[in-house]
Amino acid sequence: MKIHEFKAFPNPLRVRMFLAEKGINGIPFEQINVPEGEHREPAYLAKNPYGAVPTLELDDGACISETIAICRYFEELQPEPALMGETPREKADIEMWQRRVEQTLNDTVATYFHHGTPGLGSLESYQNKEWGEQNLKRYHDAMQRLDDHLEGRTFMCGETFSIADITLFSGLYLGGILEIEIPDRLTNLNRWRKVVSSRPSASA
Amino acid sequence: MKIHEFKAFPNPLRVRMFLAEKGINGIPFEQINVPEGEHREPAYLAKNPYGAVPTLELDDGACISETIAICRYFEELQPEPALMGETPREKADIEMWQRRVEQTLNDTVATYFHHGTPGLGSLESYQNKEWGEQNLKRYHDAMQRLDDHLEGRTFMCGETFSIADITLFSGLYLGGILEIEIPDRLTNLNRWRKVVSSRPSASA
Repeated sequence: MKIHEFKAFPNPLRVRMFLAEKGINGIPFEQINVPEGEHREPAYLAKNPYGAVPTLELDDGACISETIAICRYFEELQPEPALMGETPREKADIEMWQRRVEQTLNDTVATYFHHGTPGLGSLESYQNKEWGEQNLKRYHDAMQRLDDHLEGRTFMCGETFSIADITLFSGLYLGGILEIEIPDRLTNLNRWRKVVSSRPSASA
Repeated sequence: MKIHEFKAFPNPLRVRMFLAEKGINGIPFEQINVPEGEHREPAYLAKNPYGAVPTLELDDGACISETIAICRYFEELQPEPALMGETPREKADIEMWQRRVEQTLNDTVATYFHHGTPGLGSLESYQNKEWGEQNLKRYHDAMQRLDDHLEGRTFMCGETFSIADITLFSGLYLGGILEIEIPDRLTNLNRWRKVVSSRPSASA
């Protein structure tokens, strides 16, 4: 198998971190040059008609896209260490927080990137500046809420690191690229990021 | 346990269909009057600080929100019939399509509702009409792509009904409320909807 990705982007980072936390090594990564539009060329669209990166290509040529679906595949192949929970309640709680983070933080900062900044330049077929700015506000609101949630918790879902933490880390990673800092007053979120940044998977 | 919901909305429909397909009956549903803002009152925010419906409340008071997380909980409690796949590959494929449908169809039609129509009226704190109209276009694009995908397939992921079908059905349900019809030329999507509409779970 192999993974098609663009390493600088936040979703490929999520898959890299996930694999590193699992101790799964040796899967080759092939780079798709997204800023030059390679993800919209027929060769890549044959693997993922929706054009997003990353895509996992299996040995028989079947392709799995969508970051969380790729992670699910590896979670099922190699359950330990569990990054999506073990009991029904843990699995539901982690999925809930993964989605909350993704929708309120990752999606808003990505929307700010695509609409409130030059984004991918000439590849942006439609931009709505006001919508971009609105999402920058939402990103700040999301950081505040997540700071509240992290009060008294080591990780997003308690004492065990999970995919919800990976999603949060990647959302803040894109924020960092866009030079949106975590405000100093968000002490829980800053403490959490320091802890997660020190994990080997954070530089995978 | 019980489920807090607003029955007219598409996400509660997803949970209802999921439970009906599982044959899980007898869980009480309590209505949260979203058009009157009950989802933003302290009593509900204590169960889901993000204010969305539905929320599953367990017998010890713990709450699970996010439609897919609620479904995951029931999938784990009662695996049969599997609606999220059985093998690693099936699970990944269903998750991939569930997300593609959700992001390209359900999210776009919901965005059109909130921005391109009066939406929830005075509860809409920010609207961006142009963004709403753009999402109506995206909704139509999504229907076209899904029609392409359904060529030669009974359901979204082949011959087995899955949560990807439930998500698609609920997205088209909201489209129907907004009087956005599936174009006649999308014969696969129309055929698919006819098949799924005939399942008892569709009127759950």
